[in-house]
Amino acid sequence: MTAYDIIMKKRRGEELSREEIDWFIKGCTEGDIPDYQTSALLMAICFSGMTADETTALTMAMTRSGDMYKPSEELGKKCVDKHSTGGVGDKITLIAAPICAACGVYVPKMSGRGLGHTGGTIDKLEAIPGFNTEMTREKFISIVKTAGFSVASQTGKLVPADKKLYALRNDTATVDSIPLICSSVMSKKLATGADGIVLDVKTGSGAFMKSVEDAAELARAMLDTARLAKRGCSVLITDMDKPLGREVGNGSEVREACEALKGNCTKDLYDVYMAVAVQMLRLGGAGDRGECERLAKDAVSSGRAFETFEKVTELQGGDPRALTDYSLMGTPRYVKDVLAPADGYISGICCEKAGLIALGLGAGRKTKADRVDPTAGISFEVTAGDRVKKGDVLGRLMSSSVSDMTEAERDFKDIFTFSEEPQPHRPAVLKVMED
Amino acid sequence: MTAYDIIMKKRRGEELSREEIDWFIKGCTEGDIPDYQTSALLMAICFSGMTADETTALTMAMTRSGDMYKPSEELGKKCVDKHSTGGVGDKITLIAAPICAACGVYVPKMSGRGLGHTGGTIDKLEAIPGFNTEMTREKFISIVKTAGFSVASQTGKLVPADKKLYALRNDTATVDSIPLICSSVMSKKLATGADGIVLDVKTGSGAFMKSVEDAAELARAMLDTARLAKRGCSVLITDMDKPLGREVGNGSEVREACEALKGNCTKDLYDVYMAVAVQMLRLGGAGDRGECERLAKDAVSSGRAFETFEKVTELQGGDPRALTDYSLMGTPRYVKDVLAPADGYISGICCEKAGLIALGLGAGRKTKADRVDPTAGISFEVTAGDRVKKGDVLGRLMSSSVSDMTEAERDFKDIFTFSEEPQPHRPAVLKVMED
Repeated sequence: MTAYDIIMKKRRGEELSREEIDWFIKGCTEGDIPDYQTSALLMAICFSGMTADETTALTMAMTRSGDMYKPSEELGKKCVDKHSTGGVGDKITLIAAPICAACGVYVPKMSGRGLGHTGGTIDKLEAIPGFNTEMTREKFISIVKTAGFSVASQTGKLVPADKKLYALRNDTATVDSIPLICSSVMSKKLATGADGIVLDVKTGSGAFMKSVEDAAELARAMLDTARLAKRGCSVLITDMDKPLGREVGNGSEVREACEALKGNCTKDLYDVYMAVAVQMLRLGGAGDRGECERLAKDAVSSGRAFETFEKVTELQGGDPRALTDYSLMGTPRYVKDVLAPADGYISGICCEKAGLIALGLGAGRKTKADRVDPTAGISFEVTAGDRVKKGDVLGRLMSSSVSDMTEAERDFKDIFTFSEEPQPHRPAVLKVMED
Repeated sequence: MTAYDIIMKKRRGEELSREEIDWFIKGCTEGDIPDYQTSALLMAICFSGMTADETTALTMAMTRSGDMYKPSEELGKKCVDKHSTGGVGDKITLIAAPICAACGVYVPKMSGRGLGHTGGTIDKLEAIPGFNTEMTREKFISIVKTAGFSVASQTGKLVPADKKLYALRNDTATVDSIPLICSSVMSKKLATGADGIVLDVKTGSGAFMKSVEDAAELARAMLDTARLAKRGCSVLITDMDKPLGREVGNGSEVREACEALKGNCTKDLYDVYMAVAVQMLRLGGAGDRGECERLAKDAVSSGRAFETFEKVTELQGGDPRALTDYSLMGTPRYVKDVLAPADGYISGICCEKAGLIALGLGAGRKTKADRVDPTAGISFEVTAGDRVKKGDVLGRLMSSSVSDMTEAERDFKDIFTFSEEPQPHRPAVLKVMED
């Protein structure tokens, strides 16, 4: 077996065997296969695609490249996990995990910090004073046993093959390939070991998958992989033509999540968290869709979901008072309200540009070494479809590190498109695909 | 401009600008662009192809990466060059160059050693005792002025971009792409600076281009590039479904070339060397096709072409007596005649396998450090279409380094396919394409 032959086979559009995929992934992860051969194979995959069997073999080979967990064996009960392909304003984990936990379904969540417009789930939680996500496996499992969920930072040994491949893909324009996205996402979910996986695939201008059709193709690949790997799986295709909810940032997203758990929430955020929670509960064995929806609603209205979040915060060293007295998460030193330049209906909000503004204000990380500003971000006052008058506040820019907001303000005005006509409503959850 | 954007553009099938191609080639040659990005671009080119303008821009960017020569300025007269895409038994340069020189058309030939089944032109010439191809530019030009042609080894600074890209292509299954083959061949021809270029594109089982159609597509790309680079160009598509002539080796190919220059030669070898010489003479301004054919025939029949070869051999330090007393080039220590296992017509001779046998006997180089055995090779007694009887000699295996020929003999029998029916004749020159 040689790297050359495997690359040529894929270049010719032929199906690679499990043995070939295993050999290549082992070789590139351990450094025996040079990066220039790996990147050539990645590009050939972008063009030739992969069958469901190949995608599964790739996913499994990546999964086996590092540590693998079996939380259901440690906890004695089915566990569920969720993943989002990355959206602006996505704080769903902070809402859906406490709901599931409050309904008795375990969510042992391992999460990355990642690079992005805003921080990942870990960075958001660290806006809560004292909240710590670095802990032993034993502590993590014991918190899940006690409170139903916990969020831990991923260790360095989780799917090293993905770290390697992702870095190369990022440099060689081979990120947006369905088998490569699928294997990257699924290998991490399989390695962390949940029995049921809910995937939230974002679609729209602010996402990798620009159309619902593309998103559905990715969803199909992930469902196939999950089935072949014998895991339960559901995929939601959700809208990313506008930010999710009103807050984009870290502390501010925790605040919005807490409000949602207290029953105060925009419709789009409600629709998505409810859809995700229902699928997680269903895969966790809590009942059928209708039953799970009833359970989820009750967990919120009874206050049990919020109490679960408070309990986990306390168990992970955080100050639970910050979940009510939000000022304990800090307040931004600099704020700037941005006003509508004219009357009209908001026909669109560019997520990509909104994300870049949040990043510029300090809400995200440009390089791994950067520190996230927990107070930085954008607080939207309006959403797509709203009618605004000249001078209405469109949103508030917030930062403790950037004092001159001239540029951010100019860019912020650019993210909106206006129309003189009322705009049709686009639902937040566009499609649900169950295995 | 970033490597990422250029790779993505080509991945999307868009046309790269001259500036983008220049920038990328400069970056990868100078080491500013890492190999894994270059190999990703090469693979994207294999899939997306290149327009004639892109291929020319790539060729020119590669040409400019190192030294560039203008022999016509040094010699005060038009110069011609030839190139073959690589065949088994190809000794055409050794015949066509002396013919052109004898007809007054200059052939300042720079040649590589290369890796292959047998050595390159340089290795073949070095079978002649004392023949030296390493010399100053001044000496090279002065030999061409005196005798009409000379063969010099390529220096390290000739098209470094091709060295870089070829090494990567060889490792990443991106060799057989028409724009990449075209730019590799043409950049070297443009850098060495001839005004007229004759390209011999091999087709058949022993060549990159398996069909005449593929070969014609490559030929078209090379003609386009030559036209855009303002050089005269002709392409011959010639057969590589069987070895060219009867000898495969180094010393033995020099011997066969000398015999051809003395008027003794198989029909296939005659047809190809005459077609190449006629096109070289035509591009060198010696007249129309008919006139050039008359000149070439006269150069051979008068003995002037052979005398030119003797003269150049002497000027380059070689012993011209070896061109008549072939034993001066050495004789193989081990020989083995291989006999026909049954009666029949020879329907095919696998060039690729024949080449590998010659390589195994010591005629070629597996790694750059290997030394070529000038006495090693295969001497065919039969060719495709011949009728043989059981026990007839099919060919002779020769080597001074491999004494046990058991394996080579078994492999040699495998290269022939036999038929009970007479076989149709396939011409040696399949197509002539002039600009």
